[in-house]
Amino acid sequence: MAPPSHTASQLAERFALRLQGDGTVAVHGVATLANAGPGHLAFLANPRYRPQLAQTAASVVVVREEDAEQVPGTALVANDPYSAFARISALFESRPATPPGIHPSVVVDPGAQVAASAHVGAFVSIGAGSVIGEGCVIGPGCVIGEDCHLQEGCELVARVTLVTRVRLGKRVRVHPGAVLGSAGFGLAMQNGRWLNVPQLGGVNVGDDCEIGANTCIDRGALEDTVLEEDVRLDNLVQIGHNVHIGAHTAIAGCSGIAGSARIGRYCLLGGAVGVVGHLEITDKVVITGRGVVRSSILEPGEYSAGTPLMESKLWRKNSARFKQLDALARRVSALEKERE
Amino acid sequence: MAPPSHTASQLAERFALRLQGDGTVAVHGVATLANAGPGHLAFLANPRYRPQLAQTAASVVVVREEDAEQVPGTALVANDPYSAFARISALFESRPATPPGIHPSVVVDPGAQVAASAHVGAFVSIGAGSVIGEGCVIGPGCVIGEDCHLQEGCELVARVTLVTRVRLGKRVRVHPGAVLGSAGFGLAMQNGRWLNVPQLGGVNVGDDCEIGANTCIDRGALEDTVLEEDVRLDNLVQIGHNVHIGAHTAIAGCSGIAGSARIGRYCLLGGAVGVVGHLEITDKVVITGRGVVRSSILEPGEYSAGTPLMESKLWRKNSARFKQLDALARRVSALEKERE
Amino acid sequence: MAPPSHTASQLAERFALRLQGDGTVAVHGVATLANAGPGHLAFLANPRYRPQLAQTAASVVVVREEDAEQVPGTALVANDPYSAFARISALFESRPATPPGIHPSVVVDPGAQVAASAHVGAFVSIGAGSVIGEGCVIGPGCVIGEDCHLQEGCELVARVTLVTRVRLGKRVRVHPGAVLGSAGFGLAMQNGRWLNVPQLGGVNVGDDCEIGANTCIDRGALEDTVLEEDVRLDNLVQIGHNVHIGAHTAIAGCSGIAGSARIGRYCLLGGAVGVVGHLEITDKVVITGRGVVRSSILEPGEYSAGTPLMESKLWRKNSARFKQLDALARRVSALEKERE
Repeated sequence: MAPPSHTASQLAERFALRLQGDGTVAVHGVATLANAGPGHLAFLANPRYRPQLAQTAASVVVVREEDAEQVPGTALVANDPYSAFARISALFESRPATPPGIHPSVVVDPGAQVAASAHVGAFVSIGAGSVIGEGCVIGPGCVIGEDCHLQEGCELVARVTLVTRVRLGKRVRVHPGAVLGSAGFGLAMQNGRWLNVPQLGGVNVGDDCEIGANTCIDRGALEDTVLEEDVRLDNLVQIGHNVHIGAHTAIAGCSGIAGSARIGRYCLLGGAVGVVGHLEITDKVVITGRGVVRSSILEPGEYSAGTPLMESKLWRKNSARFKQLDALARRVSALEKERE
Repeated sequence: MAPPSHTASQLAERFALRLQGDGTVAVHGVATLANAGPGHLAFLANPRYRPQLAQTAASVVVVREEDAEQVPGTALVANDPYSAFARISALFESRPATPPGIHPSVVVDPGAQVAASAHVGAFVSIGAGSVIGEGCVIGPGCVIGEDCHLQEGCELVARVTLVTRVRLGKRVRVHPGAVLGSAGFGLAMQNGRWLNVPQLGGVNVGDDCEIGANTCIDRGALEDTVLEEDVRLDNLVQIGHNVHIGAHTAIAGCSGIAGSARIGRYCLLGGAVGVVGHLEITDKVVITGRGVVRSSILEPGEYSAGTPLMESKLWRKNSARFKQLDALARRVSALEKERE
Repeated sequence: MAPPSHTASQLAERFALRLQGDGTVAVHGVATLANAGPGHLAFLANPRYRPQLAQTAASVVVVREEDAEQVPGTALVANDPYSAFARISALFESRPATPPGIHPSVVVDPGAQVAASAHVGAFVSIGAGSVIGEGCVIGPGCVIGEDCHLQEGCELVARVTLVTRVRLGKRVRVHPGAVLGSAGFGLAMQNGRWLNVPQLGGVNVGDDCEIGANTCIDRGALEDTVLEEDVRLDNLVQIGHNVHIGAHTAIAGCSGIAGSARIGRYCLLGGAVGVVGHLEITDKVVITGRGVVRSSILEPGEYSAGTPLMESKLWRKNSARFKQLDALARRVSALEKERE
């Protein structure tokens, strides 16, 4: 099958971009400025790549107005070149065919329902009371337990587990290995032994959320763990029971959110961020990578923690001094007092 | 099916709690103080929720003696309300039916044994020499390799992998995506290339342990990786080869324990804790979230590491100073010396 | 089946080691110095175990020249006892039989190719355009999507997912739960909602790489995510889209490498190391456990970050002072200035 091809004029019209230069140029693929060749469309969003503009062999480049003059070939001018590029490049994405129908190997409980337009791949099992909505794509090897409800257009890419009482809104995408609805880490100590606290809640995921590979979202203890709409979780993220994450918040890989934490809307958590349980983070908070949130954050803004990387020899000395930091501060106070 | 229902008197008798108020009140579910309605049982353990006691609509509340007077309806008085609640709420937990028997899709090696009372779900494979004990529940999609032995009453929830030489005691529960018995990260450098060190040991898990979703426990290099009884691991935890974890220790999510570390009994490791290899932690040690253990801990107690979160602008300044901390301490010493 | 048995002389000859003592001694297993019994071969590499040499019951010990005199029984003398031991112990490793052939449950797309000498276990699915090379072992429960190519001798232990456009070189080993080729975390914000940036690249893994359990390697956005040959990744590692990792680099568990970072050859990253995106680390860099790389490293060497563990009470005081560190440094400067 020939790859799709679009002229620069067609793209300009379709995505409401200003065309500069030859609109008849054909685009049959996307690439970086540095590696693009004839027939490719590239983009410039990050100013640090501006020097590559003059040398690029791309036939078409998506740029901001202020960079348009420097484009050697055809330019498509956008307010936000990155999102324009994202929408254009979707035209060149080939996705596996997922025709409606249930693979003959699939095991569906008689008490489950699968919409006629859904695609269910090999070796999937679907438990009692679960409902797979219209147009859902359930990739190979997924396990859907009891009482899970997927609204229309969800995609479980492959080998996803929904344990029990998981509700997915519309168009939720879950990547391989993710586990939703597992029993949370609820323990009580009794007579010197751990006692499991039953985890009776579920997981409630809003429309357009995305859950990364091998990410875990535990079900709630009494109420549900909740992701509002358009929440984006990267890979290997841990979401404890009864966490509540506001709409449009994005959390990067290897982060962990402990039980009953409440995170606001439009927050950005960098890689390997930690959030202690039972606290609150307001809307529009940014936590940079590796930050640990140990108390509630009530003001929007950007927050950080951690120490800088340095040669190990120097680090050992500085690190040892950290143990004496309070004492050092007191010594400085003493010196200041004497001076008076 | 109607939900189960129990009167307050029945619960008081069954769990040896003191009844205060109307014992004929029927309980058909559990809830938080804030969200409970008529027919619900709630509890008060954390003093911070005490203000909710007066307003709760719960028919029954489990409390400590000192809070009993404030309960508007019926009270059940316990020394430890949280564990009493845990035991009561188990009455209201509905679990999927797992009747004895092996799903027709299952692939069992002729050299493996599965007890008649075990339940084995769809798409499970069981390798040579493996033994599944009485009453075990093996959920869909699990892979059990060669020479794995599960004693009675174990549960592999779904999509668990036991690679090889994994021994599970009684009533061990393993959550989806967990991998036990994988080859440890044993490498020797030879002539500029990595050489794998064969991982000939196994994994030995004691009675009543629980292993979280997507958690990994590597098998030992020469001897076994060991979890004593009643060890509790949360999700996304990494346990290296030849680690030994004492009974009743609990490790929260995203933690990593490097090879041959030895952790005592009744330890508590918070989220994302790290433990360096080949060291020892004695019994009853608490490491708060994100702490890194770089040398042995021989005294019980609570230990921490890390820096506080702050606005990024301030953090950049403070963080830069950390690189000069040793020099700063020397400058203070010089000032002190001069003063004398 | 009787375990394999080799005499000390045979081992000396086969691995080019110097024999000291009785060469007729039979070795039928390997063990640690402390736990070895008659018939066992042990080794001494780490000097801290030297005191165990005199008491060991091992029939044969692999040692360096300088320790040979202390060996009570037969010694095999090596320049590098650890790698010699690794090669010897491979003789005693029993691996499951993986005869050529495809399990009847397997689902292979008509457009995929599987070499005649490959072994494909139960419940595997293989998508259109994928190619499984000679001698590959695909364990139970693996999902291989579209357009994935495995060269000869690869092993996917069990329940591995290759999503799409994954290329594995020769003899690549991937442990259970790993996910390669998942869509990277590429997001653009548009009108207050997240927009997915299509991830059109693949994953390119060189010969002899090893990928740990539940590790994730995202596919590239426009170009490929690349691991050169002999890269070793431990469990629960996250590799973002378009990362490039040089040959012979090893990365320990729970580490995360953000998108488009470029790591050199022969680097060693300890446990839970973080690397920020779009930066460069040169060859032969060591980052100790928990270090975070926030800017490019251009000089080989060992680098660290973090604070030491201490009793929580002391930590709270020191940690609070970290917020004032810049101010403290200024106060010391003021004192120094006054003194002049």
